[in-house]
Amino acid sequence: MKLGRFEQQGRIFHGAVEGDQVAELEGSIFDRYRATSKKHALSTLKTLVPCVPANFYCAGLNYAAHIEWANKRAGLNRKPPEKADIGYRSPNALIATGESIVIPADSPGPVQFEGELVAVIGKKARNLSEQDALSCVLGYTLGNDLSERSWQKQDRTLWRAKNCDTFKPMGPFIATGLDPMKLTVGIRVNGATATEYDTGKMLFSAQHYIAQITRYMTLYPGDVLWLGTDNATEPDLKDGDTVEIYQQDIGVLTNPVRRARA
Amino acid sequence: MKLGRFEQQGRIFHGAVEGDQVAELEGSIFDRYRATSKKHALSTLKTLVPCVPANFYCAGLNYAAHIEWANKRAGLNRKPPEKADIGYRSPNALIATGESIVIPADSPGPVQFEGELVAVIGKKARNLSEQDALSCVLGYTLGNDLSERSWQKQDRTLWRAKNCDTFKPMGPFIATGLDPMKLTVGIRVNGATATEYDTGKMLFSAQHYIAQITRYMTLYPGDVLWLGTDNATEPDLKDGDTVEIYQQDIGVLTNPVRRARA
Repeated sequence: MKLGRFEQQGRIFHGAVEGDQVAELEGSIFDRYRATSKKHALSTLKTLVPCVPANFYCAGLNYAAHIEWANKRAGLNRKPPEKADIGYRSPNALIATGESIVIPADSPGPVQFEGELVAVIGKKARNLSEQDALSCVLGYTLGNDLSERSWQKQDRTLWRAKNCDTFKPMGPFIATGLDPMKLTVGIRVNGATATEYDTGKMLFSAQHYIAQITRYMTLYPGDVLWLGTDNATEPDLKDGDTVEIYQQDIGVLTNPVRRARA
Repeated sequence: MKLGRFEQQGRIFHGAVEGDQVAELEGSIFDRYRATSKKHALSTLKTLVPCVPANFYCAGLNYAAHIEWANKRAGLNRKPPEKADIGYRSPNALIATGESIVIPADSPGPVQFEGELVAVIGKKARNLSEQDALSCVLGYTLGNDLSERSWQKQDRTLWRAKNCDTFKPMGPFIATGLDPMKLTVGIRVNGATATEYDTGKMLFSAQHYIAQITRYMTLYPGDVLWLGTDNATEPDLKDGDTVEIYQQDIGVLTNPVRRARA
C-alpha cells in the first residue's frame, strides 16, 4: 500500500494511492485509519511531505562506494565508520515532491544530490532487538539529502551544508510491506540516470540502526531515519535542473532546482 | 511576564505565572492569547516543557572560559570557533522541570551538566539583520545540555553523548522582556553552587546567531536556540544528585538524576 499526505483547497488529509487515484483516509496513518468513500484524482491534489518528523535521524557514510568516491573527490582519507553513530537533520528544510530546491545566492557550490531510502516510524519504540527492529516501521519513502560541498568542508557543523530551507525533499509516498535491504534506489538529473544502487550494500542495516537508536532513544510515530546514499553524487546541480529520486514501489520524488538571486 | 505549559488531569494548557498562581490562557502563546478568569495554584499543576520545538538549534563552544576548561580537562587544543556554525539537538530528549535525568546503564561517564540560556522563537522569521534579530523571540527559558563525555569523545557524532532520552531538560517557564546579553545563569548541584556566568561573555551574541541562521533557514514559532555554557561543568553527576539551572527572571529548572539499572 502507498500512503500519502495531501492538500485540497487548504484542507489536509492522508490518502491511499492506487494508480492515479487517491482514497481519502479517516484517522491517522500513525494510529488507526480507514478508507472513506471519497476518491480524488491524484492530479487534482497537492502532494505534501508524507509526514513531518519530530525527530529527524540520518545515517552518514553508510555505503562503501560513496565513501571511496567522496575521498577521491575531496582528497580525504575517511574510513568507513566503525559504528552506527547517527546524525540529525531539521524539519525546516523539508519540501514535498514538485517543490523547488533553492540554492542560496552565496553558495560557492557545488550543490549535489544524495538519494536515500527513508524509514518512517509508525509506532513508539524503545530497546528493540535487531530481529524486532522493523516492527516499529510503518513504511519507506525517499529523501534527497542535498549537500553544499564547500560549506560541508568549511563549517564546523553541517548546518547550512545540509539544512538550508528546501534542502530536504522527502516523498512522494510511504510504501508499506517492503524489505529495506532489497531495494534499488536511483537518481536522475534532467531525465538521465546519474546512478542506481542496491540498499543491500548498506554498511549498517536499517535493522541495526534502529536497534542502536532505541538503546538510548525512544522512537515516535512520524520520526524518520534517512539511510544514506551510495556511489558518486554527480552531476552537480544548477539553476534550471530537475532532480528525481526513484524506487519502483515508492514512486518518484521530483524537484526542480533554482538559484536564489542575491 | 512568565509563560508556562501545564497539565491538569490530562488537559494541557498554557498559563501566565504570577508568584505561586497560574492564570490559564486561551489561544496560543505563539499567536494571540488572552488570560481567562481560571486561576490555579502552581503546586496543583504538572509543569511541562514550555514548548516542543520543530527545530532545535544550539550554539556550541560559545564561551571562552568553557573552551579553555574543556581543553585542559580532555588534553585538547580546540580554538574558539571562527564562525557561528550551529548544531542540532532532538526533541526526544526533552524533559520538564521535576522529571528525572536517566543516565544509561552502559554510560562510562562522566555525565555533566551544561546550563544554558535558551531563546524561544515566537514569530516566523527569515533574513533578519542583527539589529532586528530579537524581534522574532518570544522570550527566554533555561536548558541543561547534559553531556556524556566519553561518548562525546568516542563517537563520530553527538547522538548519544547529547540526545539520550531525558538528556535535555528545558524550562521551567518562558520569561519575556529580557535582554539575553545581560543575564546571570547559575548551576547548583545538591544545593551547592557549581558555577555562575554572565551571558554578556558569549563569543557570538544571540542576535548574531539568529541573524546567521535566518540567512539560510526559516525560524518558526516554538523553535528554540540554546546559547551555550560557560566555565567548568563539574561536579560530575551521579545517581541521587539533583541539578538546578537558575536565572532570576526565568526561575529554576530542577531535575533529579538517576542511573538506569542494566
